Amino acid sequence: MRGSMHRAHVFISVLAGGSGTRFWPASRKGWPKQFLPLGKDPHTPLIAATLARVAPLAPPERTMVVTGRALAEATRSMVPSSVAAKVLAEPVAKNTAPAVAWATRAALREDPDAIVVVLPADAYIEDEEAFREALARAIDAANRGAIVTLGIRPTRPETGYGYLHVGKPTEHAGVFEVVAFVEKPDLARAQQYLRDGRHLWNAGIFVFRASVMDAAVREHLPQVWAGMNEVDADVRDGAREEDAIERVFQGFPSVSIDYGVMEKVARVDVVPTDCGWSDVGSWQASWELGDKDANNNVVRAEDPTLVVLEDASGTVISAPKGKIVAVIGVDDLVIVDTPDALLVAPRSRAQDVKRAVDVLAQRGKKDVL
Amino acid sequence: MRGSMHRAHVFISVLAGGSGTRFWPASRKGWPKQFLPLGKDPHTPLIAATLARVAPLAPPERTMVVTGRALAEATRSMVPSSVAAKVLAEPVAKNTAPAVAWATRAALREDPDAIVVVLPADAYIEDEEAFREALARAIDAANRGAIVTLGIRPTRPETGYGYLHVGKPTEHAGVFEVVAFVEKPDLARAQQYLRDGRHLWNAGIFVFRASVMDAAVREHLPQVWAGMNEVDADVRDGAREEDAIERVFQGFPSVSIDYGVMEKVARVDVVPTDCGWSDVGSWQASWELGDKDANNNVVRAEDPTLVVLEDASGTVISAPKGKIVAVIGVDDLVIVDTPDALLVAPRSRAQDVKRAVDVLAQRGKKDVL
Repeated sequence: MRGSMHRAHVFISVLAGGSGTRFWPASRKGWPKQFLPLGKDPHTPLIAATLARVAPLAPPERTMVVTGRALAEATRSMVPSSVAAKVLAEPVAKNTAPAVAWATRAALREDPDAIVVVLPADAYIEDEEAFREALARAIDAANRGAIVTLGIRPTRPETGYGYLHVGKPTEHAGVFEVVAFVEKPDLARAQQYLRDGRHLWNAGIFVFRASVMDAAVREHLPQVWAGMNEVDADVRDGAREEDAIERVFQGFPSVSIDYGVMEKVARVDVVPTDCGWSDVGSWQASWELGDKDANNNVVRAEDPTLVVLEDASGTVISAPKGKIVAVIGVDDLVIVDTPDALLVAPRSRAQDVKRAVDVLAQRGKKDVL
Repeated sequence: MRGSMHRAHVFISVLAGGSGTRFWPASRKGWPKQFLPLGKDPHTPLIAATLARVAPLAPPERTMVVTGRALAEATRSMVPSSVAAKVLAEPVAKNTAPAVAWATRAALREDPDAIVVVLPADAYIEDEEAFREALARAIDAANRGAIVTLGIRPTRPETGYGYLHVGKPTEHAGVFEVVAFVEKPDLARAQQYLRDGRHLWNAGIFVFRASVMDAAVREHLPQVWAGMNEVDADVRDGAREEDAIERVFQGFPSVSIDYGVMEKVARVDVVPTDCGWSDVGSWQASWELGDKDANNNVVRAEDPTLVVLEDASGTVISAPKGKIVAVIGVDDLVIVDTPDALLVAPRSRAQDVKRAVDVLAQRGKKDVL
């Protein structure tokens, strides 16, 4: 692997805040999407797969997971023991910029030459080798001072993602300049992006020298930078890092790393890749990724022998531990069972679950989310 | 009510053995169909509705429920406190004839003039007034020495029931002789039965003087009769009735009251009735009986506000206590959830659940039934 020369400096920072209703009732406020086994392997939560995927790039002691305090304990339980990542528990959610700033300082404190790879906990990647190749290339460029992002070559006119407008090649082979970060497009524009070959999906994966990012934070988010200085000082004085964070984090602006830093720095580079990335944004996507039986059913259960399908096709079933599920004579459904809630819907309409959750909230069942 | 003159002598004997997979997973070996609220009221188990329905005919102390020992405790918990029926717990299932023989002797012991009404625990009756009218007529005839059954006027060419071939009128108004008990017919014959008006559904509801039935048992099931004599003797000697039953019951033949006695006695009479009887033989039947929303959905849940239907129609949902269920964009399904098992199937195919249960048994999950 080309990046192996920098291996000693690489820190992994997995962003695992996460909320949303798209996988309700499997996902909840206290059990977000990254805890669910929605990729190909029906036994591995997305966050565990993410950590395993990048484990070859950095040793456990240089691997961090940033999450909310309420999720910290569950997140620790999701980290494979072979990874043993450190969990940074935010006292309050402030979007991704403060999370990245914290991870950056935590890395800097360990190693002034640290290179940080930031990536979301809840995506799926089919071709892990290609993904790590792209990361190695990005690490290489970051080592020379660039802020680098991965750009996923689009395979469809997706209107749900942000895009990276790709510019001219840089001095590094396979690395290009980013002309602009582009908001979610309408369909016509997305179709144009797909055709023109100059637009890549923004997967929220960034690689940079910690010192370079820290300087960018100083320039574009000075309040966050100053707060992190206080944290550093407190830690030097013997404070627990999380206590020091607690004192400053509440006052930070809530802003994404894309908007707060990336779109504002003079130059961001991009490594285009075809690594079979998916944000696993719906049950439909999870079904597409999943291992299918002869009738295109996907069973996501700890013990699949408890799930019986008779004359069923195209159906994705998610069942809690120990639950028996019999599905007879239905096509293209999503059946998501949990100990306290059940969803049955056509696969194509699973996103309408938000309406059902809204109805429950109107009925005063607010604790179901 | 015409039968009120005999009220003091009437004993109710509800047969509540019950097993079968048709309502799996809502029904189980230890939780049979009669425990389920499958009638119009989604909160009342069939057995409780049955007991409440006949409560005007006999006081609590003359009401018995015959069930298996394994079901006795749960059965007691299902009996409405206003009914407070005595539960006769069979040590082993021997079909209905030994159950009826036991109930008959139990009534005889209390009252040599007892009239016994035998009925299954798991049927539904729409017109309770008409039903009690028919029973009162049957009690009247039984009081004069007849063995009387209720005959339900067929409303469709049903091939799943036994029929009663109706003969000439008896001396009692509205009471006819039974020419023959007829086995489940094929469709052509069932259509003929529907047309000829001489065939009624056998609902397993019988009314007789205990002394008359006891004599019939003596003649046609002498081993059972002799066994019941031993029980009587043991009870007279101070034994607990269930201990006495235990000693003889295992040796009894396993035979239905229809086959063992009714088809063999010289004469059985029948009271035809249109009381909206249903044996609630399937989820389809339960859906037909249930209270429907504007889209013909039937929700069977303790708290229906936990069940949300969006663009769903013709669907019957059975959910356990406290479970949230969201059903979106589906038609004519059966969704039966329980704490440990879930069924999703088209309403018309819910009976195919037996195949799914067989598959589970083949996989070694034998405890799911």
